[in-house]
Amino acid sequence: MQSQTRPPQAEPATARGAHPLEPLFHPRTIAVVGASPEGNAGYEFVRKIQAYGFKGRIYPVNPKGEPVLGLPGYPSISAIPDEVDFVIFASPAATVPAAMEECAAKGVKLAHLFTARLSETGVPELAALERRIVEIARRGGVRILGSNGMGLYYPKEGISFRANYPKEPGDVAFLSQSGGNAWEFVYRAALRGLRFSKVISYGNACDLNEADYLEYLAEDPETRVITAYIEGVRSGRRFVEALNRAARAKPVVILKGGRTKAGARATASHTASLAGDHQVWEGLLRQAGALGAESLEELQDLAVALRFFPKPRGRRVAALGGGGGGSVAAADACDEAGFVLPRLPRDIVEELKQLIPATWMMISNPIDNSAIGNPRATSRLQELAFRHEAFDFVLLELGVDAAYEDDRGVERTHQTVGRLIELQRETGRPTAFIVRSGDAGEEWRRNAVNRDREMLVQAGLPVFPDMRRATRALGRVLRYWEERDNETAS
Amino acid sequence: MQSQTRPPQAEPATARGAHPLEPLFHPRTIAVVGASPEGNAGYEFVRKIQAYGFKGRIYPVNPKGEPVLGLPGYPSISAIPDEVDFVIFASPAATVPAAMEECAAKGVKLAHLFTARLSETGVPELAALERRIVEIARRGGVRILGSNGMGLYYPKEGISFRANYPKEPGDVAFLSQSGGNAWEFVYRAALRGLRFSKVISYGNACDLNEADYLEYLAEDPETRVITAYIEGVRSGRRFVEALNRAARAKPVVILKGGRTKAGARATASHTASLAGDHQVWEGLLRQAGALGAESLEELQDLAVALRFFPKPRGRRVAALGGGGGGSVAAADACDEAGFVLPRLPRDIVEELKQLIPATWMMISNPIDNSAIGNPRATSRLQELAFRHEAFDFVLLELGVDAAYEDDRGVERTHQTVGRLIELQRETGRPTAFIVRSGDAGEEWRRNAVNRDREMLVQAGLPVFPDMRRATRALGRVLRYWEERDNETAS
Repeated sequence: MQSQTRPPQAEPATARGAHPLEPLFHPRTIAVVGASPEGNAGYEFVRKIQAYGFKGRIYPVNPKGEPVLGLPGYPSISAIPDEVDFVIFASPAATVPAAMEECAAKGVKLAHLFTARLSETGVPELAALERRIVEIARRGGVRILGSNGMGLYYPKEGISFRANYPKEPGDVAFLSQSGGNAWEFVYRAALRGLRFSKVISYGNACDLNEADYLEYLAEDPETRVITAYIEGVRSGRRFVEALNRAARAKPVVILKGGRTKAGARATASHTASLAGDHQVWEGLLRQAGALGAESLEELQDLAVALRFFPKPRGRRVAALGGGGGGSVAAADACDEAGFVLPRLPRDIVEELKQLIPATWMMISNPIDNSAIGNPRATSRLQELAFRHEAFDFVLLELGVDAAYEDDRGVERTHQTVGRLIELQRETGRPTAFIVRSGDAGEEWRRNAVNRDREMLVQAGLPVFPDMRRATRALGRVLRYWEERDNETAS
Repeated sequence: MQSQTRPPQAEPATARGAHPLEPLFHPRTIAVVGASPEGNAGYEFVRKIQAYGFKGRIYPVNPKGEPVLGLPGYPSISAIPDEVDFVIFASPAATVPAAMEECAAKGVKLAHLFTARLSETGVPELAALERRIVEIARRGGVRILGSNGMGLYYPKEGISFRANYPKEPGDVAFLSQSGGNAWEFVYRAALRGLRFSKVISYGNACDLNEADYLEYLAEDPETRVITAYIEGVRSGRRFVEALNRAARAKPVVILKGGRTKAGARATASHTASLAGDHQVWEGLLRQAGALGAESLEELQDLAVALRFFPKPRGRRVAALGGGGGGSVAAADACDEAGFVLPRLPRDIVEELKQLIPATWMMISNPIDNSAIGNPRATSRLQELAFRHEAFDFVLLELGVDAAYEDDRGVERTHQTVGRLIELQRETGRPTAFIVRSGDAGEEWRRNAVNRDREMLVQAGLPVFPDMRRATRALGRVLRYWEERDNETAS
């Protein structure tokens, strides 16, 4: 099956069953070409890989063979007295061909060209230089990641291009044609609890491209959700095949850069990509059963929903936590997302009549927190949202201003959040939290909001920054699960 | 002119030229009915008005006439040995009619019914009680704000329903049928620099309603922008007249609660409102030349744009600050908002050739920060964005993760922000900043982002939390200004 759709230019599998790219991502040794002891981009790569706890050996390469960060340096790849599996190029483009010849001679498997200013410049000589580098690599059996990308963040192997990324591995993969988007996405997504199997920032895709990576991630047992930022596709047919295969295997969410004319012009100077027609793109995604995102924010939201929101039995939601206006907004947002807001069932109403005889008739779903006016009734309603069979899932909103008004509010909210986490854990009911940004004038308030959001995230719960972002992402993911079920059933 | 369109039920103007509601908002004395010394909702009103620096006299009223927060208390309105202009009711609904009779006898001008559980309960007896209260008030010449609302935040008069609101007055008015939305909106909007003339949280609108307030705010010289959250309209014809008049006088932005069936059901139990057909609503807004918002976030964004983004000469934008992927996203967002992204003019390109001979050809508009690779060229491009006649306005993005990577990044970014504020001040070019949320795992980073956002806000600049929210709001406001110009011209 696999060989049937495998493209001719891919390397043969080294081990039966393993994808041909698999060995490239498990280097025992890494050389960094262009790592100077004075601190430059190459130095930073050495520093980060070292700090990340890479278990293998690291070899800095610079013209004088000077040591970097306590590691002996070498004047060239060929001077390294060891096998070299992975080479990171942070050296000027003009010097790459000669060094790539040495990589080929040395049996290097994967070269990451952080080196940029090649085809994306639009200068014919530099595009030709890129082609020459690729030819040398192909002839020598070296695959190239890049050019003009941040390369690899693979926490399990201790490889990272960023100092502040989580050390724990996860099961979300991110493919990105933009290094800046990789930075921002991983950083924001990590705050919301996502952890990564592999992040591949591949820039111009001069050799390995989005189709290769997608194919690989489709089979990668470490990856459960594939996310991607793509500006252009190098080979349409191979990409469509890879997309279809990946989307059959696991959820795939893609943010396409260059939806508009102006955006397409920008992709050309960024990664020398042809953005293509956006309607065609949307059709491809739909046919493959992949999800499209319209912004880096939506890409996060969809990944959070796919990863932390278990498939509910149905679309009946209990929404609570907002005041009167917040409840109306929640109702509008839920309705627009295609959720069902069941009226409170008779037994809940009967219980409310006992608990809050003066206000029971004002409580409906969404449950207006401000109308309850009784902490015992509030807790009981929260409990019923998690336990009652009238609901399939729960949306819980924390209002920052009201909840964190003062010290008492901070402590009360913190305790409530703890209790809600317990309830969710006990009942297993699919739940999403809306926690608005902790941006605030007061430091104590920023810290308090952050503490509670972290507690929710650490409990493995999906957190969204506003109601509409939550319902949009959850609505799309619900539909995604439902469509998958229908396909399986038919 | 004014009397011609004034509705029959409105009071006659007390002073020639002043709106009949004007005297209601300048009380010399405030009584709070239901303020207990032990601390309840009435106590909180006394505390907040006191803390706000209300210049007049405050009279707590409770059954035993006990003092509250150092102020002598009285057992009833009639027992107060002074004129009473404004009464806040935080007492149970059943006790209101008798007290309202006393208000009438005392010559009270405005009664705010924080008291709830009236018509919004849907209970016929309680709806009848509300009607009786209104009748007593009308007969006695007392107007009612509420029931079931937070009442008045009028910083200039030292009146507030919230402890942490800014003390400085501003020129944005907010009318809200939801107290919770008033809390959240003022809190968030204040963080983005908006200050308020009057905020009126009016709940069920049992006497004074959205038409009265809109009419008043249309004429209010303290108000330059009117924002509102409305769930339902009490009198369609009067509202349409008031809306048209207000929108002719100044920008009006309205968030309508209850767009959907589920939302409309929620408005009924919140403020006993009939939400009406949403398409009809949108038609009304369009015809009046008012702006609709779809969420509390968009309401903020539009108010920020209207208040802090001066009308540019045209639609030609210079977008900068993002990396490669950010620049593509900016291009897509600008295109979708109908902005024009001019290519860099020849003289800028010539200068770039000198400054960055190796990368000049990769720099276009949006300007990819990561491709410049030279701080002097970065500053120069920023300066040209503000000065060059090829552009009408500037969009500037600060990436949180990259900009605030470490101590050095924090200081560098802080200095850059200071320099950009200077440039904007000097050139007067319309500018908007995109500063992502400072939510972060590290306290130092939260503080650093907050410091820079505050600096921008204090400089009177519009700040948006992401690129698409910025371009959507700015695009709509640009169109709004253009349409106004066309009307004036024709």
